[in-house]
Amino acid sequence: MQETAVTVDPNITDPAESTSAAQETSAPDATGHRVGVAVVGLGGAVASTMVAGVELLRLGAVGSAGLPFADRTELTPYESLRFGGWDLDPADLAKAAQVHQVLEPAQLDLVAGHLETLTPWPAVADPRWCRNAGGANVVEISSLRERIARIRDDLQRFRTEQELDTVVVLNLASTEAVPPDTTFLADAAALERAIDADDPAVTPGVLYAYAAISETCPYVNFTPGAGAESPALQHLAEQHGVPIAGRDGKTGQTMLKTVLAPALRSRGLHVDGWYSTNLLGNRDGEILNDPDSMASKVNTKGSVLDSMLGYAVDDHIVRIDYYRPRGDAKESWDNIDLTGFLGGRMQLKLDFLCRDSVLAAPLVLELVRMVVEAHRRGESGAQEQLGYFFKSPVTRDSRPPEHGFARQEQTLNDWLDGR
Amino acid sequence: MQETAVTVDPNITDPAESTSAAQETSAPDATGHRVGVAVVGLGGAVASTMVAGVELLRLGAVGSAGLPFADRTELTPYESLRFGGWDLDPADLAKAAQVHQVLEPAQLDLVAGHLETLTPWPAVADPRWCRNAGGANVVEISSLRERIARIRDDLQRFRTEQELDTVVVLNLASTEAVPPDTTFLADAAALERAIDADDPAVTPGVLYAYAAISETCPYVNFTPGAGAESPALQHLAEQHGVPIAGRDGKTGQTMLKTVLAPALRSRGLHVDGWYSTNLLGNRDGEILNDPDSMASKVNTKGSVLDSMLGYAVDDHIVRIDYYRPRGDAKESWDNIDLTGFLGGRMQLKLDFLCRDSVLAAPLVLELVRMVVEAHRRGESGAQEQLGYFFKSPVTRDSRPPEHGFARQEQTLNDWLDGR
Amino acid sequence: MQETAVTVDPNITDPAESTSAAQETSAPDATGHRVGVAVVGLGGAVASTMVAGVELLRLGAVGSAGLPFADRTELTPYESLRFGGWDLDPADLAKAAQVHQVLEPAQLDLVAGHLETLTPWPAVADPRWCRNAGGANVVEISSLRERIARIRDDLQRFRTEQELDTVVVLNLASTEAVPPDTTFLADAAALERAIDADDPAVTPGVLYAYAAISETCPYVNFTPGAGAESPALQHLAEQHGVPIAGRDGKTGQTMLKTVLAPALRSRGLHVDGWYSTNLLGNRDGEILNDPDSMASKVNTKGSVLDSMLGYAVDDHIVRIDYYRPRGDAKESWDNIDLTGFLGGRMQLKLDFLCRDSVLAAPLVLELVRMVVEAHRRGESGAQEQLGYFFKSPVTRDSRPPEHGFARQEQTLNDWLDGR
Amino acid sequence: MQETAVTVDPNITDPAESTSAAQETSAPDATGHRVGVAVVGLGGAVASTMVAGVELLRLGAVGSAGLPFADRTELTPYESLRFGGWDLDPADLAKAAQVHQVLEPAQLDLVAGHLETLTPWPAVADPRWCRNAGGANVVEISSLRERIARIRDDLQRFRTEQELDTVVVLNLASTEAVPPDTTFLADAAALERAIDADDPAVTPGVLYAYAAISETCPYVNFTPGAGAESPALQHLAEQHGVPIAGRDGKTGQTMLKTVLAPALRSRGLHVDGWYSTNLLGNRDGEILNDPDSMASKVNTKGSVLDSMLGYAVDDHIVRIDYYRPRGDAKESWDNIDLTGFLGGRMQLKLDFLCRDSVLAAPLVLELVRMVVEAHRRGESGAQEQLGYFFKSPVTRDSRPPEHGFARQEQTLNDWLDGR
Repeated sequence: MQETAVTVDPNITDPAESTSAAQETSAPDATGHRVGVAVVGLGGAVASTMVAGVELLRLGAVGSAGLPFADRTELTPYESLRFGGWDLDPADLAKAAQVHQVLEPAQLDLVAGHLETLTPWPAVADPRWCRNAGGANVVEISSLRERIARIRDDLQRFRTEQELDTVVVLNLASTEAVPPDTTFLADAAALERAIDADDPAVTPGVLYAYAAISETCPYVNFTPGAGAESPALQHLAEQHGVPIAGRDGKTGQTMLKTVLAPALRSRGLHVDGWYSTNLLGNRDGEILNDPDSMASKVNTKGSVLDSMLGYAVDDHIVRIDYYRPRGDAKESWDNIDLTGFLGGRMQLKLDFLCRDSVLAAPLVLELVRMVVEAHRRGESGAQEQLGYFFKSPVTRDSRPPEHGFARQEQTLNDWLDGR
Repeated sequence: MQETAVTVDPNITDPAESTSAAQETSAPDATGHRVGVAVVGLGGAVASTMVAGVELLRLGAVGSAGLPFADRTELTPYESLRFGGWDLDPADLAKAAQVHQVLEPAQLDLVAGHLETLTPWPAVADPRWCRNAGGANVVEISSLRERIARIRDDLQRFRTEQELDTVVVLNLASTEAVPPDTTFLADAAALERAIDADDPAVTPGVLYAYAAISETCPYVNFTPGAGAESPALQHLAEQHGVPIAGRDGKTGQTMLKTVLAPALRSRGLHVDGWYSTNLLGNRDGEILNDPDSMASKVNTKGSVLDSMLGYAVDDHIVRIDYYRPRGDAKESWDNIDLTGFLGGRMQLKLDFLCRDSVLAAPLVLELVRMVVEAHRRGESGAQEQLGYFFKSPVTRDSRPPEHGFARQEQTLNDWLDGR
Repeated sequence: MQETAVTVDPNITDPAESTSAAQETSAPDATGHRVGVAVVGLGGAVASTMVAGVELLRLGAVGSAGLPFADRTELTPYESLRFGGWDLDPADLAKAAQVHQVLEPAQLDLVAGHLETLTPWPAVADPRWCRNAGGANVVEISSLRERIARIRDDLQRFRTEQELDTVVVLNLASTEAVPPDTTFLADAAALERAIDADDPAVTPGVLYAYAAISETCPYVNFTPGAGAESPALQHLAEQHGVPIAGRDGKTGQTMLKTVLAPALRSRGLHVDGWYSTNLLGNRDGEILNDPDSMASKVNTKGSVLDSMLGYAVDDHIVRIDYYRPRGDAKESWDNIDLTGFLGGRMQLKLDFLCRDSVLAAPLVLELVRMVVEAHRRGESGAQEQLGYFFKSPVTRDSRPPEHGFARQEQTLNDWLDGR
Repeated sequence: MQETAVTVDPNITDPAESTSAAQETSAPDATGHRVGVAVVGLGGAVASTMVAGVELLRLGAVGSAGLPFADRTELTPYESLRFGGWDLDPADLAKAAQVHQVLEPAQLDLVAGHLETLTPWPAVADPRWCRNAGGANVVEISSLRERIARIRDDLQRFRTEQELDTVVVLNLASTEAVPPDTTFLADAAALERAIDADDPAVTPGVLYAYAAISETCPYVNFTPGAGAESPALQHLAEQHGVPIAGRDGKTGQTMLKTVLAPALRSRGLHVDGWYSTNLLGNRDGEILNDPDSMASKVNTKGSVLDSMLGYAVDDHIVRIDYYRPRGDAKESWDNIDLTGFLGGRMQLKLDFLCRDSVLAAPLVLELVRMVVEAHRRGESGAQEQLGYFFKSPVTRDSRPPEHGFARQEQTLNDWLDGR
C-alpha cells in the first residue's frame, strides 16, 4: 500500500477499468439501504478473507461462527455488502487469496470466480512510512491535495457505479511508521497547512482518512498507524457528520489480555510482570520486521495493561517476531507473574494458536455494520462505544479509554440496545 | 474431619479446654461489632493460612495483595476477626501450618506463638463420606440429634467466651462424597425425619449447616459437598433469618474458565472441546484420590461451561490428579479447541502455576465479611449475589446460576453499593 | 479387527476375491527380492497412511521427510513393497483413508485409484479382548486351529499370487486387552495345549503371530497387545528361523521421554515426578476408552521411565484421554519436576502437537525393511537391536531392555553397519 | 568485572589483605594433591553458589543432586577445593550470596560465616567491552603488560599462601562484547604485538586467559566472550603444557536443544523453524540488556542447531529478555515447527522453569575436576572431550565441534574411562 511509483506501469488497470474492483451486482440490504466498503489494502490477508467470507455466507457455504454480532439482525446484513478498494499490488482478489492461504482450498474454489472480478484500484503510497511493503499498482502523483482528490474520485465513482447509499472506508493497510512530529494532527487548521505544504509527515493513512471524511464516508482504522483518531480528524469528522472508529484491531493476544487483566485485578492478584511474544509468518509479520513499523505496533499493544490494572507494570514486555513456518497462523505466548495473599508467587501462561485473518475479518465486518448504524443514527466523530474492537480505542477530548473487555462489551450492547 | 471415633482419645482436649481454639483477645471491629468465625476443618491448609494471614495483617507484616475487597472499608476489618473451629486432627494451628507449608518460614516464625494458642475442637465425622481423611480428634457420639446439639454447644460457648455479636460458620472440610439419594434434602420436613431416623445419608457437612442455621449463624460452604444449598436448608435459613452461601470456592482453573468462556462466546468463537487437568499435591489432592470425593469435585467443575456458552460442549473433560511433588502449589493445564470464521480451527492453552491456599484463604475471608454484611442488612437464605466466589453458586428456586465472572463481579459490586 | 461374527455377511468379499487386497502389479526390489507386507488392521489409520505413502513415494509426490532410514539404500526400497492384509471393516483403502483424514485431499486424489484396488481380507476377531472395535468383515469360524489355518491360507495365497520371496506380517490392530492369565505364553508346549483347548485367553493377536511364524514370515508387533514377545513365540520363531520384533511403537510422547530422561540423568537432575497426559481423537483413542485396552497401553508407557533413570519415580502418572476435536492430530503434555544442586526445584514442560499416523507410518515401513534385512542375514527370534522403534522392546531371556533413545539408535546403526 | 578505575577507592582491600579471598584452611585431596580455583567474577551468582555449595557438601548439608559426575570418585573431591578470585564488587561472598538469592535462607545461614572470610581481589576491567557491569574493586593500572603481571602476582600469591599444587583459573565474568576485529587472536605473535601495543581490543577476558596459561594454570572459559579458544591462546597453552576448555556453559535451553535436535534428525523430522526465548532476571540478564553483550551470547546459542541437523534452519530465532520478576529463576520457552512423513506439520513446545546458577554451579565444579585430571594426564591445549559442558565447544584446528548431547557424553565418558 505504501510505495511511491515514479513511472506508470502499463500493466495496471486504468481508472476506468478499476471499477471492476466493485462487485458486478449490487442489491439493497433488508432495509433498502445499499452499503459499500472501500478498503485501503484490498489485497491483504484480512481484506481478501473478509470479501471471500461474505461471498461464502451468501452461498450458504459457511455459518456464522466467529461473527460476534450475527444475531443482531437489525444491522446491515453481511451478504448485502459491496466491496472495492485500493492496493499497491494489482493482483485480483482470487490471486491474493491464493497467496495468503487463509481459505481452505475447497472454499477458494467456490468463490474464485467472484474474487477474480475484483481488482484493486491504484493506491496512494509512501515508502518512507512503510518500508517493507511494495508493489506496482500506485498512483503516480505526489501533491497531497491531488492525492486526496484522486481518492475522493475513486469513492465518488464507486458510489455512483454501484448505486450505493453509504460507502464505508476501511483501513486495513500494512502498519505505517509513526512520523517523529505529529503536532500538525492536533489541530484542524494545522493539518490543512501541512497538506498545503506537502509535508512528508502526512502519511497515506491520514490522506485516506481525510478524503473519506470529506466524502461523508464513515471511516474505520483497523491498523496501528496514527492519524484518523487525532483531534484534527475528529474535528473534521464532527464537522462533516461522519462517524469514525479506531484504532488497531484487538484480535488475539491483546484481546486475551483485556479479558484476563480485569479479572486478575478483581481478585486482588498483583501483576509483577507480563511477558508477551508473538510468532507471525504472514505479510503483517514481514512488514513488522521493519523496526519503525514495529514501534507503532508494540506501542498500541503496550499501553493497554497499566490502565486496566491501575498501576504501572515495569516488566511488561511485548515482542513480535516474523517467523515464516506459521504463515497466517499466528502464535502468541504470554507469561504473567503474579503475587497473591501473603506474598505468594504464581505464574499464568497462555499459548494461543490462532489464525490472524480468521479473527480479524469478522471484526472488520462488524465494524462496518456498526459505523453504518452510527451514521444512520446521526452520530459523528469518534465512536467510543466501539472500543470493544480496538487495542487503542479512540476517545473524545483525550479521555483515557476503557480497555477491559467485559465493560467494553457491556457498553457496546447498551448502545446497540439504545440504552 | 470425617471419621467416627468409638473410643475417647485421652490426649485430646476436653470441651472445657477446647475454648483455646478461640483467640485469647477479642476486640470489636470499627463498627463496634464483634465477629467470630467457627471453621469446619480448622487445621486444614486454607483455614490455617487464613488465620495466620489475619494475624500477619494485624502485625502489619503483609499487605492486602490477594484480598479482592480490601478497599471496602465499610465491611468488617480482617484484623478484627476471631477464629475457632473443629478438626479431626487435634494438632494446634502452629503445627498444622508447619505441615501445610503454605507460609514462608519467616512468616510462620512471626505468628507461631499466636497459632499455638488455637487448638481445634473435636469434630463430628463419618468415614463413609470421606474415606481418605482421618484423625483422632472426634466426637464420640453417633446419634444425629446429639451431634447437632454438640455442635450448637460449641457455637454457644465460642460466642459467650469471646463475647461475639456474630459467629459465622465456615465449611472448609475435605470434600465429602455425595450420598446416592438426597431426596431428603428437597424438603425441610424430610430432613427433620432423616435426622430423627439417624439416616446415614445425612453427612457431617449437613449437620454443621443445620446446627449453624439453628444457632442463627451465617453459613458459608466453600466445599463441593452437597447439603447447605438444598431447598431444605435454604428454607430453614429463611425461617431463622440467616444468610447462607455456597458452594465450592472458585479459585484457580474454574475461575479462569468463567473469565474466558464469556469472552470466547462474545467473539463468536465456538468451543469444540475443553480439556482441563489439575496437579495437586496437598491434602485436598490426597482426599480427591478417593473416587467418590473426586466425583463431587469434578461435577461442580464440569457444570460451569455449558451454561456460559449456551450450548453443550461434548468434549469437556476435567481431571484432577494427586501429584505430590507440588504440595500446595497446584498446577492446572487447559486446552481449548476453537472454531472461528470460515471454520478456522484454533487452540488456546493455559498453564496456571498457582497456590491453592493462597488463592482460597482471601476469598474465604471476603465471604465471611460478605455474609456478616448480609446479616446486618437483614437478608436471609441463599445469597445469590455471592456467586462470584463459587464454582456452583446457590440460587433461589433452582434458577440457573450466572457463572460469567464479569457479570458476577458486577452483581456483587452493585449489591455492595446498595444499587 | 476383533469381533466374532456369527452370520456371514453376503456383502463381504469371498476368499477368492480378497486377493484384490494385494497390489495389481508386483516388481522385485533392487536386490531382485520381492517383499510383501500382510497387515493385521489394514484399514486402520497407520496402515492406510503407510500404503498411501508408499504409493506417493512411487509417484514422486512426496519426499523422504519423516523416514528415519531413507539413506540406507541397501535395505528394501520403500517403493517396491506390496501390501495386503486383514481388517474387520470391509471398506477398501480409499474409503478407509478418507475416514481417517490423515492425507491431504490432494494427496488422496493422487492415490485413490490405487487404494480402491486394495480390499481387506476377512479378519479373525474376538470382542472379549477389544470391545470398542467392531465390523462385519470377519472369519466365521471359531476353532483356534482352524483360525490359524485360515490365516496361513491367506498368507500362502498372498505369496503365490504376488510371486513374493518374503512376506512380513505386521500387527497394526487396535489395542487388545491383556488376558488375566498368560502363563500359557511362557512355554511353547503350553501354548500348543491352549490352542488345542480353544482357550479364550489366546487372543487374535497371538493367533496372527503364531500363523506368521509357522509360515516363516518375519513378524512385527507394533501394538501394545501381549503375545508375540512371549517366551513361547520367541522359541517358536527361533525354531522356524523367523525374526520377530515388538512391541508398541514408540512414536510421540514416549519417544521424547526416552530422549530426555537419559539427559536429565546425565546432568544429575533428579526426577521427582513426571506427569504425562495425551489427547487423542482418532480410532485408537476411541478404542482406548475401554479401560482394559487402556491398561495395556498405559503399562507399556509407564515401565519406561524408572529403568532409564535408575530409580523409581513414584509420581509417574500417564493418562490418555479420548478427545474428538483433534482427530488424528494427537497432543501430549508432559510436566517434569526436577531437583538439582542444593535442592533447587525446577520444572520442564513439553507440549507436542503431533500427528499420530504421520509419526507411526514411517516407523512401520522401516521395521518392515529391518526384519527383512534380519531375515536375509539368517537371524531369528527376538530382534533386540530394533528396540529403537518400541515402547516395550522385546529382549531375549527376559533381560531388561535398553530404553534410552541415543543408545538404541547407536545399537541399531552398529547392527546395520555390521559392527 | 569490567570497569576501569582511574582513582584508588580507599575502601577496597589492599593486595596484602586480599588473600582473605582464599579459604582459611587448605587440605590435600584424597590423592594428596591440593587444588585451588581462582575465579574471574568471584562475587557473581554462579561463583558464590559454587563456593557455598562446596561448603554445604563439606558440612554434609546437601547431597550430590545436580552433580553429573558425583560417582567419579577418582577425580578431585569437591570438598577439597579452595577458592579465591577477582571481582569488581568488593563485597565478601556472604554479602554476594545474599544479593543473588540462589541459596535457601537456611543454607545461607549455615555457610555465611565461611563466606564472609572470602573477599574478592581487585579486578582488571574495561567498560568498553561490558558496559552494564560496574564496581569499585578495580586494578588501577592500564598497561596491558602490567595488568597481566598483576594477575600473575595474584595467582602466585594464592598458590603460595594456600600451598596449592594446582590452580585452575575459571572465567565466570559477565558476558563481554566481541571486539570488531579479532585477527590478532589468530596468531600467537600477533597477540604479543597487540598486548605490547596496548590494543584496546585485547579484552580483560583475554588477559586473564593469557596470565593463567603463563602461570601454567588450567583455564576454563564458561562465558561466551571470545578469547581463550583462539588459535593464539591454544598455541600458547600447548607451549606451556596447560589444558584449556570453553566456551559458554551449556546449562538450560541450549542443553535441551542439543538433546532434542539429534533425536528429531534421527527420526527424520525436518525442523522448519525453532523459536527460542528466555526470561532472565538476574545480573546476567541485566548485563545482556546491553546489545553488544547480547550479540556474543546469541551467537554462541545460535550456531548450535544447524550443525546438529545437517541443514540450515532459516527461521531459528533466539531471544533473551531481561525480566526482573524471576531473579535467578530463568525461564526458557521453545517452539519447534516440524515436518514429518507426507508433509505432516507438527509442533513441539518446551517450557523450562529452571534455576540458572543451580544448573551452572555444578557444571563449573565438574569442569574444574576435569581440567585437573587432564593436567594430571599431561594433556594440553584445547580439551575437545569437554564439549559436553559448552554451547560453543573449542576444537583443535578449527574442526567443526560435535554438539549432540549423547555423543558428547559418550566421548567424555570414554575419555574418563581411558578408552
